[in-house]
Amino acid sequence: METKLKGTFYGVSVGPGAPELLTYQAAALLSACPVIASPVTASGRSLALEVVRRALGEEALAGKTLVPLRFVMSRDPEELENSHRLAADRVRSYLDAGQDVAMPNIGDVSIYSTFSYLQRLLQAEGYSTAMAPGVPSFCAAAARLNQPLTGGMDSPLTIAPVSCAENVLDAPGTKVLMKSGRQLPALLKALEQRGDLARSALVCDCGLPNEALYPDLSAERPAGNTGYFSTILVKE
Amino acid sequence: METKLKGTFYGVSVGPGAPELLTYQAAALLSACPVIASPVTASGRSLALEVVRRALGEEALAGKTLVPLRFVMSRDPEELENSHRLAADRVRSYLDAGQDVAMPNIGDVSIYSTFSYLQRLLQAEGYSTAMAPGVPSFCAAAARLNQPLTGGMDSPLTIAPVSCAENVLDAPGTKVLMKSGRQLPALLKALEQRGDLARSALVCDCGLPNEALYPDLSAERPAGNTGYFSTILVKE
Repeated sequence: METKLKGTFYGVSVGPGAPELLTYQAAALLSACPVIASPVTASGRSLALEVVRRALGEEALAGKTLVPLRFVMSRDPEELENSHRLAADRVRSYLDAGQDVAMPNIGDVSIYSTFSYLQRLLQAEGYSTAMAPGVPSFCAAAARLNQPLTGGMDSPLTIAPVSCAENVLDAPGTKVLMKSGRQLPALLKALEQRGDLARSALVCDCGLPNEALYPDLSAERPAGNTGYFSTILVKE
Repeated sequence: METKLKGTFYGVSVGPGAPELLTYQAAALLSACPVIASPVTASGRSLALEVVRRALGEEALAGKTLVPLRFVMSRDPEELENSHRLAADRVRSYLDAGQDVAMPNIGDVSIYSTFSYLQRLLQAEGYSTAMAPGVPSFCAAAARLNQPLTGGMDSPLTIAPVSCAENVLDAPGTKVLMKSGRQLPALLKALEQRGDLARSALVCDCGLPNEALYPDLSAERPAGNTGYFSTILVKE
């Protein structure tokens, strides 16, 4: 009797966006996998795949199967779960055919990544999964601002999505708020009311051509919304 | 009148230890800088330099000036400050001679790094400094355990040195405790008393030849001390 080996599902961190921030491991995995499944926006754009293209070159993708994964941006748990199941279905068909699938992820794949949801679903069905770590957006943002994220050894660092900001702004040490998008104006207002703007910085689209740095939000801040990939640092 | 240009002091993240977790940017910077200044232990060993050697090959270091930096392991602020000043003095002499100096750092250079202290001292004197971000140990540990660091989007992530553990164990979300060394047995005891062992994992020397994984500390734990580069994850 013949047993067909199933493929492995890899979550591959590609860093915040600058192609030189890929690791050797990420580049090797993306080059080796015959299938690249990447999240696309409603307009069909895939930021993660664009980073892969810039890092490895168009020719590295020749002959590969590119699978766009559509995820809803929703707060309805059922709608989200359904969107994750549909994406897992798409990935599963390649794994069943014995092909390894790499899913490139902006930043690091262990921190608030979409890969985690698909990984959980496919692991529960017995599929093999693996993760390649990378440079998180907040580490790259700190480097662009040329300042450490942490204070002394007695001071913690708290990371949270902006949607969860109110629960962490009173934590000791530095706070990092990720994935702001539409919630940024409300957060800036909250920081102003708390008197925190002068110790807060903002980095939008770190390492991308449209990058914007605001090292002191009390001196200058963006007029309106910024992209989803905005990182706010609030120092103690 | 002639003005001699001074060198730049680069903090270069090399990731947790596995050579394939260097970024392209880190490799390029380390290859370009004529001086590599790296922390050494009392026995003269430099883990950061060993990672550079394995990643770039011995020949990449040929012709470079290798500067060992000795730091005291002390809780006395004056002794620490003095040790940082002596290291800054060594780096400064090369910068004054117009040479760029790269200081390789295990993990990411923005998070509890020794580079930050030297950077602050040299920046205050007007020297140019820059940072290359990298893969933090906790992201690599999560990848080795093949599990996400974060829960849902309403749950934060708190990072702290083990010395600061008691201040963060009650925080919501996942807690990451870094740089344990001698304090590990006391932390394990505290986790046991809190009933947290079954949701805690430990990764020692992630990606190095002597790596050890303890995915469930209620099932198995190390007998004695582990190295300085141990990462503990405590899930919510």
